[in-house]
Amino acid sequence: MRNTFGTLFAVTSFGESHGAGVGAVVDGCPAQVRMAVEDIQIQLDRRRPGQSDLSTARSENDKVEILSGIEKGVTLGIPIALLVRNHDMKPGDYKMLQTAPRPSHADFTYHAKYGIAASSGGGRASARETVGRVAAGAVAEQFLIQRYGVDVVAWVSSVSDISVTLPEDGSLSRAQVDRHPVRCPDLSAAAEMAKLIVKARDDGDSLGGIITCVCRGVPAGWGEPVFDKLSARLAAAMLSIPAVKGFEIGSGFAGTRLRGSTHNDRFVHQGGRLRTATNRSGGVQGGISNGEPVVFRVAFKPTATISRPQATSDYEGNEVLLEGRGRHDPCVLPRAVPVVESMAALVLADLALWAAGAGVS
Amino acid sequence: MRNTFGTLFAVTSFGESHGAGVGAVVDGCPAQVRMAVEDIQIQLDRRRPGQSDLSTARSENDKVEILSGIEKGVTLGIPIALLVRNHDMKPGDYKMLQTAPRPSHADFTYHAKYGIAASSGGGRASARETVGRVAAGAVAEQFLIQRYGVDVVAWVSSVSDISVTLPEDGSLSRAQVDRHPVRCPDLSAAAEMAKLIVKARDDGDSLGGIITCVCRGVPAGWGEPVFDKLSARLAAAMLSIPAVKGFEIGSGFAGTRLRGSTHNDRFVHQGGRLRTATNRSGGVQGGISNGEPVVFRVAFKPTATISRPQATSDYEGNEVLLEGRGRHDPCVLPRAVPVVESMAALVLADLALWAAGAGVS
Amino acid sequence: MRNTFGTLFAVTSFGESHGAGVGAVVDGCPAQVRMAVEDIQIQLDRRRPGQSDLSTARSENDKVEILSGIEKGVTLGIPIALLVRNHDMKPGDYKMLQTAPRPSHADFTYHAKYGIAASSGGGRASARETVGRVAAGAVAEQFLIQRYGVDVVAWVSSVSDISVTLPEDGSLSRAQVDRHPVRCPDLSAAAEMAKLIVKARDDGDSLGGIITCVCRGVPAGWGEPVFDKLSARLAAAMLSIPAVKGFEIGSGFAGTRLRGSTHNDRFVHQGGRLRTATNRSGGVQGGISNGEPVVFRVAFKPTATISRPQATSDYEGNEVLLEGRGRHDPCVLPRAVPVVESMAALVLADLALWAAGAGVS
Amino acid sequence: MRNTFGTLFAVTSFGESHGAGVGAVVDGCPAQVRMAVEDIQIQLDRRRPGQSDLSTARSENDKVEILSGIEKGVTLGIPIALLVRNHDMKPGDYKMLQTAPRPSHADFTYHAKYGIAASSGGGRASARETVGRVAAGAVAEQFLIQRYGVDVVAWVSSVSDISVTLPEDGSLSRAQVDRHPVRCPDLSAAAEMAKLIVKARDDGDSLGGIITCVCRGVPAGWGEPVFDKLSARLAAAMLSIPAVKGFEIGSGFAGTRLRGSTHNDRFVHQGGRLRTATNRSGGVQGGISNGEPVVFRVAFKPTATISRPQATSDYEGNEVLLEGRGRHDPCVLPRAVPVVESMAALVLADLALWAAGAGVS
Repeated sequence: MRNTFGTLFAVTSFGESHGAGVGAVVDGCPAQVRMAVEDIQIQLDRRRPGQSDLSTARSENDKVEILSGIEKGVTLGIPIALLVRNHDMKPGDYKMLQTAPRPSHADFTYHAKYGIAASSGGGRASARETVGRVAAGAVAEQFLIQRYGVDVVAWVSSVSDISVTLPEDGSLSRAQVDRHPVRCPDLSAAAEMAKLIVKARDDGDSLGGIITCVCRGVPAGWGEPVFDKLSARLAAAMLSIPAVKGFEIGSGFAGTRLRGSTHNDRFVHQGGRLRTATNRSGGVQGGISNGEPVVFRVAFKPTATISRPQATSDYEGNEVLLEGRGRHDPCVLPRAVPVVESMAALVLADLALWAAGAGVS
Repeated sequence: MRNTFGTLFAVTSFGESHGAGVGAVVDGCPAQVRMAVEDIQIQLDRRRPGQSDLSTARSENDKVEILSGIEKGVTLGIPIALLVRNHDMKPGDYKMLQTAPRPSHADFTYHAKYGIAASSGGGRASARETVGRVAAGAVAEQFLIQRYGVDVVAWVSSVSDISVTLPEDGSLSRAQVDRHPVRCPDLSAAAEMAKLIVKARDDGDSLGGIITCVCRGVPAGWGEPVFDKLSARLAAAMLSIPAVKGFEIGSGFAGTRLRGSTHNDRFVHQGGRLRTATNRSGGVQGGISNGEPVVFRVAFKPTATISRPQATSDYEGNEVLLEGRGRHDPCVLPRAVPVVESMAALVLADLALWAAGAGVS
Repeated sequence: MRNTFGTLFAVTSFGESHGAGVGAVVDGCPAQVRMAVEDIQIQLDRRRPGQSDLSTARSENDKVEILSGIEKGVTLGIPIALLVRNHDMKPGDYKMLQTAPRPSHADFTYHAKYGIAASSGGGRASARETVGRVAAGAVAEQFLIQRYGVDVVAWVSSVSDISVTLPEDGSLSRAQVDRHPVRCPDLSAAAEMAKLIVKARDDGDSLGGIITCVCRGVPAGWGEPVFDKLSARLAAAMLSIPAVKGFEIGSGFAGTRLRGSTHNDRFVHQGGRLRTATNRSGGVQGGISNGEPVVFRVAFKPTATISRPQATSDYEGNEVLLEGRGRHDPCVLPRAVPVVESMAALVLADLALWAAGAGVS
Repeated sequence: MRNTFGTLFAVTSFGESHGAGVGAVVDGCPAQVRMAVEDIQIQLDRRRPGQSDLSTARSENDKVEILSGIEKGVTLGIPIALLVRNHDMKPGDYKMLQTAPRPSHADFTYHAKYGIAASSGGGRASARETVGRVAAGAVAEQFLIQRYGVDVVAWVSSVSDISVTLPEDGSLSRAQVDRHPVRCPDLSAAAEMAKLIVKARDDGDSLGGIITCVCRGVPAGWGEPVFDKLSARLAAAMLSIPAVKGFEIGSGFAGTRLRGSTHNDRFVHQGGRLRTATNRSGGVQGGISNGEPVVFRVAFKPTATISRPQATSDYEGNEVLLEGRGRHDPCVLPRAVPVVESMAALVLADLALWAAGAGVS
């Protein structure tokens, strides 16, 4: 469904950029999971604007209110409704959009689809929509870690043409990722990325990049064969994030250049169970987790909203020079890290319950 | 659901590699679409084994029987059940698999998930499962072309390290794609790819590659914002295909290196409507089609099944040398072209009905 | 899904009786439907407690806040989040329930399912949960009347053994229904019903009854054959309402005593179209609407919560005398009228979009 | 979805009355359930036409073929496709229907919805569609009995105005039900019912009636609160069966006349667990099973197809005298017994997996 993600662990998201608030209803989180408001707030804080001078000037404290489903720090097995009020709305910034759609933004397609738009900015097609995802993802993360010992760590592995290769074996922690506001755990690369982002911002321009994500502790057997493969669900989850244009798991695009004899992950017996000597499969074989770390990469295009003027056409067909005015990030990647983690957690939580629902004893 | 894809235009797939047959039930195809058995057979013929010496030696004529839903060459609006009988089964080929899982295949994960397997080969985790997808996709294609003038063309754009750059503007036709059995429309590149495939086959090895796909004539407004973006649904569809490890739309991974000012697709007025001067968006903005060709690329790993012996471990933890015996393709890409097209058509048909169901007048 | 109803016009409900609030997210309401907060409030006012001395003493003004999806009195095509804060919570009333489950209430089964419960009263298994249904149903009603001229009117047709037979042809209006707080449009019957309810209340007891509902203006062609018949979806909708134990459409149970030759609704040509001379089908043939009024009846058991002491057993197996203390309605039917209407509207709105999504030109 | 029922244990049905065949794909039946073709055939035999002179003259042996998902008598956890070929088609019987819709049949509404129909008889809106339900239901029954010890027994409790009251405590078996072809376990009532049916048949007329169903051994905790209550799912399942006009669970419509103090099922400690002294709840409280037998009743209208001429109107608006010619049952109830059982089993199997998927340890 349009604004619902997942079946057994299902999230329904709501809210637009300049309305009363944004949030999500999490349905299907089992009862008796310990859950404090801080568990949710911590991820929202990693996502919120204004964390550093690398991000948008919009000021939102993004405090979450739990409306239902949790009592005395424990889930009740019923819907968990989460609300974050909007505060710093500036509808006036967006007047021009009524006549000319911003290049590579969703103005044109929303107009084609709905014939109407929220009066201010992207409405629903805004990075602000991801608040609901992160709040819901934080709930999923508590469920995953408490029931299965599964957690998720993502980081920025490239910004524009600066890229790093880091271990994808699950050895990196969020603390390491957060040592630098760019959220690249390689500090010298992070510093260079930051410089590039500041430069782009000063130029009124924007940058893209790649986020790498590792899911640790996923047991063998999650993911449904055929259409609901773990890899397919992750791909959909990632491509549903604003600005994402690509997804690869394990060896990905580069792996297409290898021969099968080199690419195949042979099995070895280790620590009392079968493991693979390499992990080009990215933790997924035949769409089902094999017990190795689930590793994938997500490509973000450069932010469509830029400050410098752009030649384009208005709806009437007249050439116009569009000046960006809405506040925006010159590079969304640092703030997108918890969004990627959240969507991964939502996929895993849903498939964990599907695996349980498969009724295999 | 596990073996159902789509909501309004929904396909349920069934059948395993060495059972009685494979097929699909297509539910939701509107009434009064002209549909001949040949419309379906033509795509099955492009997918079936034994088309050329580049593919597996398994011999299946893959003749489809329409069990329901079509009468006098017209759809009735009710489920269309399609059945292809299996003929050339060789269960004996797969005995070893009972004790040792094949590297990078689904044996291990199916065993973890179900504790049981079809006695022969991959069962459901076999390229043969894609018969149902292609049969169903052919139905979707008739619906799309007759109602909306939409069609889909895919081709092999790389095999291992041989790659071609071809126009992604919708100018290539299936006839051009099919001029060479490799299904790369650049004939000299195709010849080189074929050589490489033959070499891999002779080495008992396998190759991967990339398929590019263009959907032509998609009107603006298809795709649901947030979780059911057109791009997200395509990503899931592609990652659900056996052996796929990556997906990118429009500028994809390469686009992450551009700045926003260069990457953005500015609007121009052309032919009485707004179009974009470039198509780095790949026909999708904010998750919704913008009227430009929808362009994406799909990465296939080298086939996991190879003939040369592989050192690995059996379920008991003993090192063994596994010899491949089941028949297989040294490179699945030529036969995967109609599979990619079919999955794209299924996504588009479903989202076309969602757009209609959105009730916008 | 558990707390989501509908597919294309989908409602996700949240909130428990004694938490922060209750509400719903409506996803899929098309853009450009006029919608004022008063359109929603009016139905909530018909549902809220304390309208008359026939209902519970709990005092809630049930003012709804629109959190998203509506701007300047018009829907945007995106999720409409609706929130009603709880005010008059009395958790203390429910202490005893921790040790002994109330007869015919959901305490025992929730305990079996979740092993935990909201500390106060029914939590989610409370009449208060229907606030979200009614708020969402009011949105559906605006969509139905504006796009299709469809509306829904329900009334109390029996309380205990007092029952009335009223025209089911669509001639009754909500204004007529609301002339008496019992919501039975036959005023003398209503007066008798009121007397019976007061008597039951004074006895610390409760009553059941039947609500009849007519959907007017439903065009022919709504409802999906086989599993999503209009009648099946209505049945599920009604049985999902707390305290409902039965559903019948058209001739229902009484019709089983007729012969086919008497029961069949013959067609007649009237007003330029085919109609049926009688309406024993209740507006549905083969699961699909036939253009006649859709007529059904819903059986509500007597409220499980009563004030008089009940002999029962606690979880330990000890016989106990349970005294009801939570505030409750001696007869839920008057307040259930808008709940029935709302659920019917939600079914119709979803099937209207399915019909549009069927793509029949 | 239109022709899919259930989410985790999902059935997709296909086939029309006079096409190549009818069948179903069962997706989600867990692996390692023992399943022989005879387990499925036995229920099809109870449903098939021509069992006695009380049913239609159409001759179908209804032999089922298992196309996939079962090997060596055991399920593999993958889709189970089941096919029953049609043999005795008589398209000629239905010519008149092209110009005049049969009263109270689905001809008119299918025409309104699809603008086209299967050339012969009801097509999909035929009792023959229930073959797929019964085949799939038989699979669900094996899963339920082997994993949970749950089974389902239904019987004819009334035909027209002859009705019987039989114990609803789970003491009746299918063997007792099958002692008389009417499938009423009270043999003297059954004999009277049979006489009435023969009389109706000889008059070219038809009869309705009620089927009672008891599900035994359902553990406490199945059913989802709010929209997917066990009672709501059963109601939808039953109303989806052709000719059904009513559903009630436990005390049902009659229970609306009791006071709460009489109606409530008090708890008693018995056999080491809490049970209820009475079962007016019908085994469901707050939408969730409470461990008592699940008891419900289903109202079938008299068959719409009758042999005697009926005055009606054709599509052009001309009065015509319609003569029934297609073969039909004068009373569908005896053959509907396994259909009711099958739909109940499908609901229970799905909710059993939901309960498992709820992840409560």
